[in-house]
Amino acid sequence: MSAQAAQRLGLTVLVLDGDLDCPAGQVTPKQIIQDWDSVLGTQALASQVSVVTLENEWVTPENLRLAMDAGADVIPGPSTMAIVGDKFKQRLAFSASGLPVPRFTSLSNWDDLIKQSTEWGGKLVLKSRCGGYDGYGVKIVEAPIGDVQLPSAQASDWYAEEFIPFDRELAVMVSRNKDGKTSVYPVVESRQTVDGHRCDVVIAPAPGLSVEQEELAQRISLGAVDAIGGIGLFGVELFLNGDRIIINEIAPRPHNSGHYTMDGCRTSQFEQHIRSVRNLPPGATTLLTPVVVMVNLLAPFDGLIDLESATRRAYECCPNIHLHWYGKTKMREGRKMGHINLLGQDLDETLSHALAARLAFWGE
Amino acid sequence: MSAQAAQRLGLTVLVLDGDLDCPAGQVTPKQIIQDWDSVLGTQALASQVSVVTLENEWVTPENLRLAMDAGADVIPGPSTMAIVGDKFKQRLAFSASGLPVPRFTSLSNWDDLIKQSTEWGGKLVLKSRCGGYDGYGVKIVEAPIGDVQLPSAQASDWYAEEFIPFDRELAVMVSRNKDGKTSVYPVVESRQTVDGHRCDVVIAPAPGLSVEQEELAQRISLGAVDAIGGIGLFGVELFLNGDRIIINEIAPRPHNSGHYTMDGCRTSQFEQHIRSVRNLPPGATTLLTPVVVMVNLLAPFDGLIDLESATRRAYECCPNIHLHWYGKTKMREGRKMGHINLLGQDLDETLSHALAARLAFWGE
Repeated sequence: MSAQAAQRLGLTVLVLDGDLDCPAGQVTPKQIIQDWDSVLGTQALASQVSVVTLENEWVTPENLRLAMDAGADVIPGPSTMAIVGDKFKQRLAFSASGLPVPRFTSLSNWDDLIKQSTEWGGKLVLKSRCGGYDGYGVKIVEAPIGDVQLPSAQASDWYAEEFIPFDRELAVMVSRNKDGKTSVYPVVESRQTVDGHRCDVVIAPAPGLSVEQEELAQRISLGAVDAIGGIGLFGVELFLNGDRIIINEIAPRPHNSGHYTMDGCRTSQFEQHIRSVRNLPPGATTLLTPVVVMVNLLAPFDGLIDLESATRRAYECCPNIHLHWYGKTKMREGRKMGHINLLGQDLDETLSHALAARLAFWGE
Repeated sequence: MSAQAAQRLGLTVLVLDGDLDCPAGQVTPKQIIQDWDSVLGTQALASQVSVVTLENEWVTPENLRLAMDAGADVIPGPSTMAIVGDKFKQRLAFSASGLPVPRFTSLSNWDDLIKQSTEWGGKLVLKSRCGGYDGYGVKIVEAPIGDVQLPSAQASDWYAEEFIPFDRELAVMVSRNKDGKTSVYPVVESRQTVDGHRCDVVIAPAPGLSVEQEELAQRISLGAVDAIGGIGLFGVELFLNGDRIIINEIAPRPHNSGHYTMDGCRTSQFEQHIRSVRNLPPGATTLLTPVVVMVNLLAPFDGLIDLESATRRAYECCPNIHLHWYGKTKMREGRKMGHINLLGQDLDETLSHALAARLAFWGE
């Protein structure tokens, strides 16, 4: 989706991915068939382009530095990515900037965990510093600590933070270009799947927030991007706990909670991403209708679907949806295969139509 | 732009174009490198896809029939294209459906022209039946007829129609799918370049129309698509002459006067095109703001531009524009290289910002 936004501006996109059938490769004529995390591929890419950007947060700072050495501009840059790629360093950076985060601590050994658990009232969250996503790499630890199955990795690869019960998850997309020009999108609510681990529905704007809460969430999100020296587009995930707003984490790229912007905002997150990467001024982030709903298409099973019939069922159920299908070649249960956006005037109506279209899509 | 809309729905697009660097080829990984009007290319294309659609009106009905014989669905179909491809047949079809067209007549020889000119008050329009566009293939003929430089082709390749002085040019996009479900976009005003031959600016909605005029223009446009048995997306060009609205001509594809829909409407003309081609129900055609302005980027000179600097100048002039650059490899004076869309609240302000952004783009 970033590639398509770049192409609309007349840019030529070169994709680095070892899979010839990867989604980005399906919308671009040029691809380097090398693993996205390989040194060889990174050097080949960087030697042929003026700017390198990324679509996941696991690209290593070392590879980003290689790309810079090969002469490309790299956005976001290695120093930002060194912070983002380690959730403990994220916490340190936010905390140093005075932003609201849960209490947290590094762990030198597993005994630290027991001590900390006692200190924080018997319950804490154990998080993998690197590589976690969608609930992977997160464990809720409750006393008695003896019953907890500890990860096989070293304690120093994890960190602990206090357990914050939250009412709702919020998210804000923020862009920042080299000139320091920023944009901030509306505050949205991100509702998770029943297992709590995957984004299921996004509602823009987040219902029931006061103007003060919205402004606070946007200010915190801008602050979070500033705290990590971020250039590019970032998704800031927040917890709403009563009146408190706390940073959960930051994603250094277009984000699932920003997919609603594709049809729902004056400037889509993908166009904004490309603008920040090219150091162009950001566009307006206004919602185009009072409500925009995004529902994820998470594969309900492994295997194949008849995309044509599914598409027809969804559009016949609700002609005003916008379906986005990513063209991933394999469906695995729970995998994000696409999403549906729906613009509307009224939340209940818009949400129920979007959910009905999704049920129709999967043939349920 | 149609290809990108199709890809968003998860469709695989195969492009037929003899030029490896054609705009569609730059956003798709698969292309048949054969002339778009070749028999070989057409057969190769049709044997590999389920649906064939087109992006210009010069694809011959013969080739479209070949594609059907090769097993593809062809939209719009050969019978529609046989009418659209011959402006005289267009006139006959519209006239037979009782739609408002200028008086017109076929020509068996050039003497007919002189007779007709006298009958219609000494002034008429001579039009090439096939292949004309952007003012090519159109001649205004005024008495004394002896001074007119007649085309070298046979008179029967041309037809004559009465000269209709018009106040403004209007346009309406219409879609119709196989099930007969239609959609109709707002009536826009299309302002031409000073030489009168190329679309320069499109304003949505067309300013100063009464509700009755808007409804009439939309009804005529829907009728025009019906009159040619059209399936797909069509741009209907109209003349406004006092209170009269007259059909100028119809384009059987996404149209320059519909580019404003890309950022300005609930459903872009390209998405609507793909929906009609796939027999999906049409989406809402509502404008997203009170005013949307499209300005064409017609090359002011032959040669090269520094696209990056031009883009930067345009966005720095007006960050809320959406620039669309088609990636054509050669700039020729007057060629359509891209366009700029701008959404707004007020016509004068929006138009002046869009024009300023265009001046900035070309570095003027």
